[in-house]
Amino acid sequence: MMECKAALVEAKGNVQDAEIVLRKKGIASADKKAARATKQGVIGSYIHPGSQLGVLIEVNCESDFVARTEDFQTLVHDLAMQVAAADPKFIRKEDVTDAVLAQERDIQRARALGEGKTEKMVDKIVEGRMNKFYEEVCLMEQPFIKENTTTVADLIKSKIAKLGENISVSRFSRFKVGDTAAAE
Amino acid sequence: MMECKAALVEAKGNVQDAEIVLRKKGIASADKKAARATKQGVIGSYIHPGSQLGVLIEVNCESDFVARTEDFQTLVHDLAMQVAAADPKFIRKEDVTDAVLAQERDIQRARALGEGKTEKMVDKIVEGRMNKFYEEVCLMEQPFIKENTTTVADLIKSKIAKLGENISVSRFSRFKVGDTAAAE
Repeated sequence: MMECKAALVEAKGNVQDAEIVLRKKGIASADKKAARATKQGVIGSYIHPGSQLGVLIEVNCESDFVARTEDFQTLVHDLAMQVAAADPKFIRKEDVTDAVLAQERDIQRARALGEGKTEKMVDKIVEGRMNKFYEEVCLMEQPFIKENTTTVADLIKSKIAKLGENISVSRFSRFKVGDTAAAE
Repeated sequence: MMECKAALVEAKGNVQDAEIVLRKKGIASADKKAARATKQGVIGSYIHPGSQLGVLIEVNCESDFVARTEDFQTLVHDLAMQVAAADPKFIRKEDVTDAVLAQERDIQRARALGEGKTEKMVDKIVEGRMNKFYEEVCLMEQPFIKENTTTVADLIKSKIAKLGENISVSRFSRFKVGDTAAAE
């Protein structure tokens, strides 16, 4: 009985190891696929109950075949919900404009100095807070709303590994009733 | 029998007259309401079958009550479909930028001159074609896809008359798969 249990534990361990290897391989090949062109895809939308908030998103992949899979469609739906809930302003880190970055750095620098930190510490603190800022404003850096130990970028990478095609988000719109009236 | 028929025809005529008066009154009061602020509303979306084309739209009215009516929700849905099918670039005539207008005028002027029209006629021809241009690129000027003898502006006016509140379209997004890839 004990032997059997040990064998079972060992077998489970092997399966886990194999899974880790496979996942590592998958992610590695996902990284390789990230350069491939994505011209197919799906336009998805999410309207929050009450119709006061809505999102439109374009998610791309390499083939029409993958675009039609349930896995891909679920990803599109999850990403639309993510944008609705977490309100990102940009897709990738690289998309954050220099003006926005400079402004945020200034704010964080002033804040750190205001808290009485020495000049020496301020740079480190600002860098830390800029990472936090990217997590807030960039879709790819945000924690995934349905599983917040993973980022949206990692969610997409896992789908690339599973579906065997590069996947990218090319654009999104997020409308909330009254947002434009407030801006005017 | 003939008398009865004549009476019926007259009665029908009266009803029609009354309807016309009511509609005229309605449209007139709709024009008056057009200045009133619209801070409530609905975010609607339309994804064309196949998920290669999608629209997100914000349509506003004055109260949450009207926003929740079936009439209003149907209007939002129809407008989202309109944007998907007729691909407007602007909401109102006033939204067309000067640069776009100037460019279109140049094109139409060159075209008319190329067709051998005299300078005298060219101005009139260009004005006529500019009206056609507005009908193509401005949502409000477009013929309504479900009933192309009426414009979108008139469709909205009839809803203002019926629902008793000002209604406006504040923004829309229209995504087609591959549009951004083509632009790059």
